[in-house]
Amino acid sequence: MGNWPGQLKLPEDLKNLSIAELKELAAEIRQYMIRTVADTGGHLASNLGVVELALALHSTFDSPRDRIIWDVGHQSYPHKLLTGRWDRFPTLRRYGGLSGFPKPSESEHDPFGTGHSSTSISAALGLALARDFYGENYRVIAVIGDGALTGGMAYEALNHAGHVKADLIVVLNDNKMSISSNVGAISDYLGRIRSDPKYSRLKAEFEQLMNRVPLVGKKMVESAERLRGGLKYLLTPGMIFEELGLTYFGPVDGHNIAALKRTLRQAARMKGPVLVHVLTEKGKGYPHAEAAPERFHGIGPFDLGNGLPRSKKKYPTYTEVFGKTMLKLAAADPKIVALTAAMAGGTGLSRFAELYPQRFYDVGIAEQHAAGLAAALAAGGLKPVFAVYSTFLQRAYDQLVHDICLQNLPVVLAVDRAGIVGEDGETHQGIFDLSYLRSIPGMAIMAPRNEDELQHMLYTALYGAPGPAALRYPRDKGEGVPLSEPRLLPWGKGELLREGKDLLIVAAGTVANAALAAADRLAREAGIDAAVINARFVKPLDEELILQWARRCGRLLTVEESILAGGFGSAVLELLAERGLALPVSRLGIDDRFVEQGPRELLLSLYGLDAEGIYREALSFTRVGVPGGAP
Amino acid sequence: MGNWPGQLKLPEDLKNLSIAELKELAAEIRQYMIRTVADTGGHLASNLGVVELALALHSTFDSPRDRIIWDVGHQSYPHKLLTGRWDRFPTLRRYGGLSGFPKPSESEHDPFGTGHSSTSISAALGLALARDFYGENYRVIAVIGDGALTGGMAYEALNHAGHVKADLIVVLNDNKMSISSNVGAISDYLGRIRSDPKYSRLKAEFEQLMNRVPLVGKKMVESAERLRGGLKYLLTPGMIFEELGLTYFGPVDGHNIAALKRTLRQAARMKGPVLVHVLTEKGKGYPHAEAAPERFHGIGPFDLGNGLPRSKKKYPTYTEVFGKTMLKLAAADPKIVALTAAMAGGTGLSRFAELYPQRFYDVGIAEQHAAGLAAALAAGGLKPVFAVYSTFLQRAYDQLVHDICLQNLPVVLAVDRAGIVGEDGETHQGIFDLSYLRSIPGMAIMAPRNEDELQHMLYTALYGAPGPAALRYPRDKGEGVPLSEPRLLPWGKGELLREGKDLLIVAAGTVANAALAAADRLAREAGIDAAVINARFVKPLDEELILQWARRCGRLLTVEESILAGGFGSAVLELLAERGLALPVSRLGIDDRFVEQGPRELLLSLYGLDAEGIYREALSFTRVGVPGGAP
Repeated sequence: MGNWPGQLKLPEDLKNLSIAELKELAAEIRQYMIRTVADTGGHLASNLGVVELALALHSTFDSPRDRIIWDVGHQSYPHKLLTGRWDRFPTLRRYGGLSGFPKPSESEHDPFGTGHSSTSISAALGLALARDFYGENYRVIAVIGDGALTGGMAYEALNHAGHVKADLIVVLNDNKMSISSNVGAISDYLGRIRSDPKYSRLKAEFEQLMNRVPLVGKKMVESAERLRGGLKYLLTPGMIFEELGLTYFGPVDGHNIAALKRTLRQAARMKGPVLVHVLTEKGKGYPHAEAAPERFHGIGPFDLGNGLPRSKKKYPTYTEVFGKTMLKLAAADPKIVALTAAMAGGTGLSRFAELYPQRFYDVGIAEQHAAGLAAALAAGGLKPVFAVYSTFLQRAYDQLVHDICLQNLPVVLAVDRAGIVGEDGETHQGIFDLSYLRSIPGMAIMAPRNEDELQHMLYTALYGAPGPAALRYPRDKGEGVPLSEPRLLPWGKGELLREGKDLLIVAAGTVANAALAAADRLAREAGIDAAVINARFVKPLDEELILQWARRCGRLLTVEESILAGGFGSAVLELLAERGLALPVSRLGIDDRFVEQGPRELLLSLYGLDAEGIYREALSFTRVGVPGGAP
Repeated sequence: MGNWPGQLKLPEDLKNLSIAELKELAAEIRQYMIRTVADTGGHLASNLGVVELALALHSTFDSPRDRIIWDVGHQSYPHKLLTGRWDRFPTLRRYGGLSGFPKPSESEHDPFGTGHSSTSISAALGLALARDFYGENYRVIAVIGDGALTGGMAYEALNHAGHVKADLIVVLNDNKMSISSNVGAISDYLGRIRSDPKYSRLKAEFEQLMNRVPLVGKKMVESAERLRGGLKYLLTPGMIFEELGLTYFGPVDGHNIAALKRTLRQAARMKGPVLVHVLTEKGKGYPHAEAAPERFHGIGPFDLGNGLPRSKKKYPTYTEVFGKTMLKLAAADPKIVALTAAMAGGTGLSRFAELYPQRFYDVGIAEQHAAGLAAALAAGGLKPVFAVYSTFLQRAYDQLVHDICLQNLPVVLAVDRAGIVGEDGETHQGIFDLSYLRSIPGMAIMAPRNEDELQHMLYTALYGAPGPAALRYPRDKGEGVPLSEPRLLPWGKGELLREGKDLLIVAAGTVANAALAAADRLAREAGIDAAVINARFVKPLDEELILQWARRCGRLLTVEESILAGGFGSAVLELLAERGLALPVSRLGIDDRFVEQGPRELLLSLYGLDAEGIYREALSFTRVGVPGGAP
């Protein structure tokens, strides 16, 4: 065993394999994925669930001529293995390696990039309409999970697809989970189809009954026939989808390759949009992942034998500290409620959900609704904390403006995985929040430089903010500082970390620690005496503190883990301009580009956001007088 | 007739009125709304459609104790008239007057602000959950149109509401339209319920048939009973909603007050979420509006007798020029396709839709899907132009990042109603686009200073852009300049409008005209010689032109119709800092606040964005040396 799949010409050769050979290949793929992800980390459980589905798709259709779009593309590993990326697979999620998501620049078999949830039906419909425009006749297939189906964008696209009737196939990969266990009425609905054979039984029993009705007179015959037609339609298990204009097939066993192929072939013969409902098991084939699919959703390197993480963390992560602080504060204040968009585990709220089920709202992958709901909970007198990854909060930008800030409702946004997130790459970097949050009137923004400050900021957001407040913190372990009792921070005040006279470094977030280290080295090695301010508040800025030290030093370097356009450094530039202080300013952050995948530390270093990069920029800026820009 | 409703104590007294009196009141409300909106402009057709519904709601429930939330609150006029705002109604949409939308700061009867679509179910659910937390027992009612139901956020909220089973009433106001005629499968579905009595007939016929089945043996009896139960459920017309966990009532005639009250009372007795399906007619009671509900959706002052606009416009609007330019370009290039999110008329695309139905996509109120679809159409080789109001594009921020810019797909965003929109007020101002668009890598942004430049920018976005490009233009008539043939503008180049040596004014968009007028006056009255640049490109900036004249003048004033945080002026500050040019800069734009309603000209003047304001700021900035900030 081992490398024979590497010898195949894929995906073409799949068409020549027997079902038995495809099954053997499925086993190889599973082993290869488990071994690789144990090493690289990545999304495992969802990929183990779609091995047979990927095989069935690629042995039924002709990629890249036919377009297959994997929603929230973290379920695309088997697809990658089947489309020319077998050998490169061990570079998965590494710097310069294969992406953990479909990526058009990586392969012609990835027709559209997908990293965020619920986008695939829009993408498939667009490609299908373009195909029809050019009079071509390839197939377009979107594979979407039941979790992703809770996202509003997927519904908007279904609604449109069912209306315009373009030929496309939506494969609903139903594993009863989004990332943690699924929520929402649509999920309940799928559950009923899955578990309850009532529908099919009803159908059979109805046929039987109808055959016994004494058909007296023409009117009765007509009625019965109309009934038969109407009820056949009504008794389809995927009634909701039928009503939305899609032809429903299923449910079909997603681990039965022959059944899958048969159904996909049927679906391909239909006109108009088709929905194929496939039942899969997340984590299938790796007992540790089957037992704990949520832990194996996105996972770091782990031990193959026992499935446990390979390395022990030295310090708790920011996420963990956030979760624990929530527990502390919630114990004392019953008005605190927490919201997540299908990320209870990822945002550190699992324990909160267990302890306070009545005060915890998992709304599904539905950030827009989460933000709107949080606004209304605040309007109703509660203290909602919406914990969300920076990149996914982008989905709720309008609700932040319209529902939260315009009404100045005291919602707390716990913006996790802000800044550089590492291996998830371009689609998941949390580098825009400072810019998009800062533009909204009344939105306060804090960024802690260590996990203890995170506690105080959460406390301050809840008890000291005059309106909505966001705290943004990285996907990283903490700094290892002791945790004190959460307390109120002075509103809008920064922290002077170091006095100096030659250069003022103002940093937002954990980069303040790197800035401090750089300043020490500047003094030691270059005779440059730099003052360092930990901004704490990106909005409102501590204007007086910054101006005071800016005047003293005569030149400023700002540091942020964020896109530069409109970010923290821009806020400082705006402040200086408003106060008539025309000083040389250099800004370190992310230039006008998307940030690639790679270890967080490496990327921070590449973008000059570690102590070394800050040191270098401070040195050249102080000596030459002109910013070097991001390296 | 006339003022007797003003004598009532509303809404309390409604409970004592007979149906006949309520009908009389309905007629009064209609007359009053028609007279007032003829004078003030506003949303008429939708409000005419919900008069009886508002009366039924307020005579059944106890506002403000019970919370009534009107989705896309432009249908809230009758509600306003019934809740203490009868006398102030003629101030509707005027500066300092009544808002055209529900607004908590205006009345305790407006429990939650709604201006954008599809937010009301989230809001109602949040209030309901907060109510349950406090153990209170008031009612929460969301009134949502069938159009707003196409928005993903509404679906996300329905999905959640059906799952958590909180007591709330969703009134589906089905007028077969969103703003123009409705699209989407859910709308088709509602249409079937509306028009086809099949469902109810089926139900009756089934009962009849079942009674004739010879029930032989216990098994058959059981089968029949299960069938009866199952089919009763399946034959409900609002099956989709039932499947989503809501109890469905309806459809009920939305102009029959007695029927409405009866159904609402029934709904109020149910546990869990209820959906009441109400059929209304947009424009009801004003023949001109019934005949052309889209034109009377949002309308300026009009003649009561013939329903025609009161004033002739001197020049075509930016919207009209955009629409005509689309026709010109589309005639020559079959790859150009247009997208709208239920705003074909508002964005000037009605004629395009008529001429090119195969190249026109109205996706419903679904900006997220529209942006994702546009990305995929571009990936499929077409040239999509998504025309959308600035304020609604906020809904698609994540799709701009993730689907369009990350893949560098050549989508053109025609951002209409950018800047100050006037009477629609806080919820609709288009003042954030420069900030949120500018932060996205690879997104080009243009702003024309007149309608001819708009044409060239559309052409340039289609044929000269290296990736996605946005053009943003105001809700206003044009400047009256002649229209030339659309042509390519030099990419990333601004236009020097006036040479000068004392001050450089850099302006983005139509404010460049005011800047030029201010500069002429500065020379004439104050001996200040100001250079003026029309930026044309907000991104990429014309760096060399700006730097050249900045160096020559030694001081800069930027002018933009946009929020200042992260906006155009910030881009100029960033440029100067990057190039090591430390100069005094003043920025005119919108400070950190939401902009109130009022005539566009008045608001521009209040925020210092007219020639007078620019003149004043230029004068004080040049003489005193420190920005005065927005007045």
